[in-house]
Amino acid sequence: MPAPLTRILGIDPGSQRTGIGVVDVDAAGRCVHVHHQPLVVLEAGEFPARLKRILDGVRAVITEFGPVEVAIERVFLAKNADSALKLGQARGAAICAAVDADLPVFEYSPMQIKNAVVGRGVAEKRQVQHMVGVLLNLSTKLQADAADALAVAITHGHARRLGLQTGLPASALMRRRGWR
Amino acid sequence: MPAPLTRILGIDPGSQRTGIGVVDVDAAGRCVHVHHQPLVVLEAGEFPARLKRILDGVRAVITEFGPVEVAIERVFLAKNADSALKLGQARGAAICAAVDADLPVFEYSPMQIKNAVVGRGVAEKRQVQHMVGVLLNLSTKLQADAADALAVAITHGHARRLGLQTGLPASALMRRRGWR
Repeated sequence: MPAPLTRILGIDPGSQRTGIGVVDVDAAGRCVHVHHQPLVVLEAGEFPARLKRILDGVRAVITEFGPVEVAIERVFLAKNADSALKLGQARGAAICAAVDADLPVFEYSPMQIKNAVVGRGVAEKRQVQHMVGVLLNLSTKLQADAADALAVAITHGHARRLGLQTGLPASALMRRRGWR
Repeated sequence: MPAPLTRILGIDPGSQRTGIGVVDVDAAGRCVHVHHQPLVVLEAGEFPARLKRILDGVRAVITEFGPVEVAIERVFLAKNADSALKLGQARGAAICAAVDADLPVFEYSPMQIKNAVVGRGVAEKRQVQHMVGVLLNLSTKLQADAADALAVAITHGHARRLGLQTGLPASALMRRRGWR
């Protein structure tokens, strides 16, 4: 009998482009690629319309692929307050699509994501992209936002395995272990 | 025959408290108070749960009171990138509730709001609160977030009147006039 799989939606939110990735993970933390796509947000028009594009786009992926958990990158620093506000709005819209479907949302720092995907906390973006392709056995080069979305989904797949062992949600476990 | 009224929802988003206000405005820009309430967001729990509280809270007011247009304060400056990110997420959730109900969203700067409510662009927060109470003929003292939400709704009521004269949406009109 094949091991039960958990479907995870990873999101890399942005006010210009939002990356979306879906992976299946088994109890051992092994991930299988299901879907990825960039969501072009910028061309949707004024800001409220862009947030609607993110809300509807993420919602459509949730409806089509039926993930049961959502992972999103935790953002620490933005260039300035203005770009932080824009990113925050995009992030808020993406999370709204998830919580509106009653899906739990887990957050991971860039360092946690690099650790999970590349094996060390300091890595170039290009290296993350490359390793996501290797881990998911993809033959085509990934677009950057979609790669980041898949990377955070993979990270949650790994963290989730630890969480399952203790019965704690991943976020609480990682906080207890001082990961964040 | 009474003049037709337009129902406007004003929102003052925040990651700890979100203010909500609803007013009816006639073609001359006269506003009548319909509803106001603070939405206590902080106690909802972790961040995704807080965004869900905002999304559901604003959505409930839209369902109950049926506004046809939404006004929200345009934010220029936050104390720092971290608070800007949090505010952005709260703002994103509030706007999502509006665009998800297919309502148009209009934004006004703090200076435009002070101009509309107090008559000059430089005014204390306390003065705005006081004038909102006077303009809407309220006998009780308003809580600050709800007052700010009503203030941006009143501002849209005024701007809308100008918009109606030219048939342009308020945002385009104000941009053309150099208001923003």
